[in-house]
Amino acid sequence: SVNPDLASERQTASFSVEKLTTLLDGGVEHTRIRRAVVEAIEGDPIFSRENQYFQSQNERYEAAVRKAVHLQKKMHEMGWTENGPEFKYIYRALSGDIAFLLHRIFMRCISVLGSDKQIAKWVPLASQYQLIGSYAQTELGHGTYLQGLETTAVFDIATQEFILNTPKISAMKWWPGDMGRSATHTVVFAQLCIHGKCYGVHPFIVQIRSLQDHSLCPGITAGDIGPKMNFEHTDNGYLLLQNVRIPRENMLNKFCEVQPDGTYVRRGSQQINYFTMTTVRITLISDEVIIPLMKACTIAIRYSVVRRQSKLKPGEQEAKILDYQTQQEKLLPQLAAAYAFHFIKDYLQELLDKGHREIQRKNFDTLPELHAFSSGFKAVVTQYCTSAVEICLRACGGHGYSLLSGLPSLYTKILASCIYEGENTILLLQTARFLMKCFMAASTGQPVPPSVTYLAAGKPGKCPAKNKLDFLSPDIYTEAYQHVAIRLVSSTAAKLQDLIQSGLKKHDAWNQCTVQLVQAAKAHCHYITVKNFAETVEKLETKAGIQKIMKHLCDLFALHGMFSNAGVFLHDGYISGAQMDMVTASYLDLLAVIRKDAVPLVDAFDFTDKSLNSALGSYDGQVYQRLYEWAQKSPTNKQISPAYERYLKPLLHNTRSKM
Amino acid sequence: SVNPDLASERQTASFSVEKLTTLLDGGVEHTRIRRAVVEAIEGDPIFSRENQYFQSQNERYEAAVRKAVHLQKKMHEMGWTENGPEFKYIYRALSGDIAFLLHRIFMRCISVLGSDKQIAKWVPLASQYQLIGSYAQTELGHGTYLQGLETTAVFDIATQEFILNTPKISAMKWWPGDMGRSATHTVVFAQLCIHGKCYGVHPFIVQIRSLQDHSLCPGITAGDIGPKMNFEHTDNGYLLLQNVRIPRENMLNKFCEVQPDGTYVRRGSQQINYFTMTTVRITLISDEVIIPLMKACTIAIRYSVVRRQSKLKPGEQEAKILDYQTQQEKLLPQLAAAYAFHFIKDYLQELLDKGHREIQRKNFDTLPELHAFSSGFKAVVTQYCTSAVEICLRACGGHGYSLLSGLPSLYTKILASCIYEGENTILLLQTARFLMKCFMAASTGQPVPPSVTYLAAGKPGKCPAKNKLDFLSPDIYTEAYQHVAIRLVSSTAAKLQDLIQSGLKKHDAWNQCTVQLVQAAKAHCHYITVKNFAETVEKLETKAGIQKIMKHLCDLFALHGMFSNAGVFLHDGYISGAQMDMVTASYLDLLAVIRKDAVPLVDAFDFTDKSLNSALGSYDGQVYQRLYEWAQKSPTNKQISPAYERYLKPLLHNTRSKM
Repeated sequence: SVNPDLASERQTASFSVEKLTTLLDGGVEHTRIRRAVVEAIEGDPIFSRENQYFQSQNERYEAAVRKAVHLQKKMHEMGWTENGPEFKYIYRALSGDIAFLLHRIFMRCISVLGSDKQIAKWVPLASQYQLIGSYAQTELGHGTYLQGLETTAVFDIATQEFILNTPKISAMKWWPGDMGRSATHTVVFAQLCIHGKCYGVHPFIVQIRSLQDHSLCPGITAGDIGPKMNFEHTDNGYLLLQNVRIPRENMLNKFCEVQPDGTYVRRGSQQINYFTMTTVRITLISDEVIIPLMKACTIAIRYSVVRRQSKLKPGEQEAKILDYQTQQEKLLPQLAAAYAFHFIKDYLQELLDKGHREIQRKNFDTLPELHAFSSGFKAVVTQYCTSAVEICLRACGGHGYSLLSGLPSLYTKILASCIYEGENTILLLQTARFLMKCFMAASTGQPVPPSVTYLAAGKPGKCPAKNKLDFLSPDIYTEAYQHVAIRLVSSTAAKLQDLIQSGLKKHDAWNQCTVQLVQAAKAHCHYITVKNFAETVEKLETKAGIQKIMKHLCDLFALHGMFSNAGVFLHDGYISGAQMDMVTASYLDLLAVIRKDAVPLVDAFDFTDKSLNSALGSYDGQVYQRLYEWAQKSPTNKQISPAYERYLKPLLHNTRSKM
Repeated sequence: SVNPDLASERQTASFSVEKLTTLLDGGVEHTRIRRAVVEAIEGDPIFSRENQYFQSQNERYEAAVRKAVHLQKKMHEMGWTENGPEFKYIYRALSGDIAFLLHRIFMRCISVLGSDKQIAKWVPLASQYQLIGSYAQTELGHGTYLQGLETTAVFDIATQEFILNTPKISAMKWWPGDMGRSATHTVVFAQLCIHGKCYGVHPFIVQIRSLQDHSLCPGITAGDIGPKMNFEHTDNGYLLLQNVRIPRENMLNKFCEVQPDGTYVRRGSQQINYFTMTTVRITLISDEVIIPLMKACTIAIRYSVVRRQSKLKPGEQEAKILDYQTQQEKLLPQLAAAYAFHFIKDYLQELLDKGHREIQRKNFDTLPELHAFSSGFKAVVTQYCTSAVEICLRACGGHGYSLLSGLPSLYTKILASCIYEGENTILLLQTARFLMKCFMAASTGQPVPPSVTYLAAGKPGKCPAKNKLDFLSPDIYTEAYQHVAIRLVSSTAAKLQDLIQSGLKKHDAWNQCTVQLVQAAKAHCHYITVKNFAETVEKLETKAGIQKIMKHLCDLFALHGMFSNAGVFLHDGYISGAQMDMVTASYLDLLAVIRKDAVPLVDAFDFTDKSLNSALGSYDGQVYQRLYEWAQKSPTNKQISPAYERYLKPLLHNTRSKM
């Protein structure tokens, strides 16, 4: 039975929840397929996440391997293939709680960087699990700066082998998933040396564990890097190489080769590599970032209409906490952000597809824009959503702090997305570099990619809004965001120029502008997000109330951004103090409007109870019963304390005898 | 041997580190005592935290009980007493990783709320550990709103007993520490009912476990609430009461009593209760919030001078990451905040001591101010420091995400401080209510407490700064913070008045202003923090370079706040856009200045390696060696994968046979 406080929220939805779900899925057919996958996965006890919050790191790892092995069988059974429409929903249905993800990267890496011969040899072995692969790039001492990797691969002409070594501790491979305990093989990125000359970082296939008994191969030291904030299910590993010899054929050689006599040959363009990174960044935004935020919103908002605390009006019953303006102000902007980023993901996917088509026609012109976009949005979306999940967690008070709420693990996992696949600050600076170039080009009338032509349109001016309702006009706020992006890009470009003209070296000048460059890159992404949301809303069908509620969310997302970053809008007077008061008034009004549809808006995300795995967020809202039931299953819940015999009993009894 | 990259940072300190340490401790004698306590605790293997990151919740709990039991012996051995000068350093030296903290609250509760007779009976029993106490206030359905507690205590005249019950699941006690597995007794807060009439929440002493064999008493259901984000060492518990009968004498009756015939008598003032809450909030700021931030800064800053990544200048060696402006901008403001809050803690302690003296003279006039201050600062400091620790964690990239860095557990623990001892938003609204009252009083010329007389001084005007150096003048920025606080308090008061005059009920008007009320309360606390920092610096001795570096940190704290909350300063034109550019310029300049002293500034916190318990933050900076050594100790680090026999072997071998 559904908690009546939650049930009543659903009766007054201003729109069709099912219609919104299919909009989010991209059509009725996708919704159908997604639900079928979810049902098949969740109906299979081997994929259960029921005891997840009670398991040790070892148990989590073992379960993840079990699931990965079982998934092969399941896919066969269900007729799912890697290229089928179901595939993208499988990982989501498993909430990513599965092993061998790096095994897939191992295969992709060989497919992209290997010659046809190498692909023909290794990919079938991997796809049939005759080996388990990993991807050994990051080292203890080097992450994002790949050129600095210190592992060496020296070519030995005499034996036609590469000799791999970890010359010092900072060169030890560190973090690769699936490598700590599972992998038999890995792709090692190492500095290629021939005749004492270094040719930079190259990829080498190295066997690390026996295929017979899984023991470590000679010269290999490897293991698990230990406890982390999350990802207990993944065996992130370390790897130390001591004179490990591999045949010449094990260097992935689609783009460069070492010939038998030691001649180094480079061929073709490596630009396509950037495209792979771009693809990964855009994909992770959806699965690892937006979905977790949607889950956090679902949990926190359902809980906030079931939890009653204190009185809003004297004499009445205690109020649902979502009826407090402060609670609305915590949660509803995060809900709006989940929608905003869902739509920006569609936008990025489209850009990616277009880029892909161009590349297939050997046109690489779109790559810089695509790279800048994927970098900037990866950083902005992961950062925003991480903060948003944390807000959801804190908004649930003590119960949010219990692992049983599901919120701590959503938070500790999404946090990693700010670090992996490129540290966010560095990514934003890459976006900023692109913006600086485009701004300079645009200022001198040269052509720039369509997404940044706006940079040339900058002119001083004032926001024309006259009252708070004007700020519900997408033109008004989109224009304001654009104005800020142009101002921050242009003023930072000017500072950079000034510093260089004053005699500073280029790199010193750049470093002295980086704080502002980051701000400019963020402003650009924020503007594009708002603009895209507004344009998406514009195109929605007007029936079933969908467009109307999406318009409210778009307004809320935009005004929340103005309210919380007021400084950048007020700085040059584009928005006046009086206008900012109008923004605030409209923003607060919107909270009360969207609050009415808050539960239907999270219901539309269509998460099952199993996928939320939360005592606070289930569809029926029976929060307290579930917390109690789940707590009783905890391994900490023994009739007699484990500290009793050894510590408590002597303490209590000793002191009594002293009396 | 110290990593040379770290050693070189210490050679150029502009001030005496030891002098700064004694300043932070409050004098040479305190430093001596603190170090003696730390040495005694850390030298005793029973208090070791060495394997903490590898332990399960059960192991952490057992270790915490072991330490608590051993501490009794240790204190006796060392001649430490609860009233001695060493006592406050013990908890700090243990990093709070100890059981029976609620046992102490149990004793304090009886001392404050019990009659002399009750104190004489229970306190000796507790202090000699003839029983283990707890404090059962929070319920599944009620936290901060105490009046809503649902547990009942019905007086039975016939037997002269109270009958305690948990009438519904939401009334179950939930969260009390030491109760899940250790406690034999607890103070239960329940609604007192006599002859069908309810008299509100009262405290009752209830035995929950046998003193013979620790089994649960009749009518008692209790256990551990399961896994949490942190506090694995604490057995937070649940408690369900079914017709549990306790004698009439077990209601704590200093302030109210139920007489044998059922007559309810109230006596004396309960105001002193507020004083207890106030004391707890101010104490926790130091131990649970500022110290963890200082630790996080120490770890992140030491790591940032040892970690080299990418090149700042072409052709040179890779740069220390702290040499990047963006890294300075992440970490140095958090360092400045640690100092700012350390000094505000001294300020609050002084206020508290003054209040205490007044109360002993039966003057309760200072209580409202003290309550408002402790609430607001508890909220502001916990929130700020939690975000600051998270920034430190993220600034260490992948290694910060490893539990071995120490940062994840600092973060997950400090996060709880935003929730316990009063949820932050509710506390800020209490501060805001006090500010509204004072503002109204001040506007009509009535007397207000000295800390808020500034509210009457509000006048429009402009900041007189003419260039970026002017913003290094404490008068200039303190004035700006004051201006903002007055503006936000007065404009919110005006909005509240307007809404009421437009016909809204008072409570509805209040709810519609809460987002802005929270802003106003924060602005007030921020202003006081800046002002207090500036005044503290003013009074410091000028020798040994201490005053100069503290002045830099004060400037940085103030300008960082202006840079990151620019909107509130720009809103009414008090600060112009051009002036905000000066703020930014001075702010960025300061980063480069303070960066030079960054390591000495964290060295001054004087944490031992054991107290940091971090592979990244040790005094010698041997980061990579330590990560590797520690990882090898992890229970996940077995020669053969625990998933091998059952899953990996069949997978690898099955597929081979399929070939």
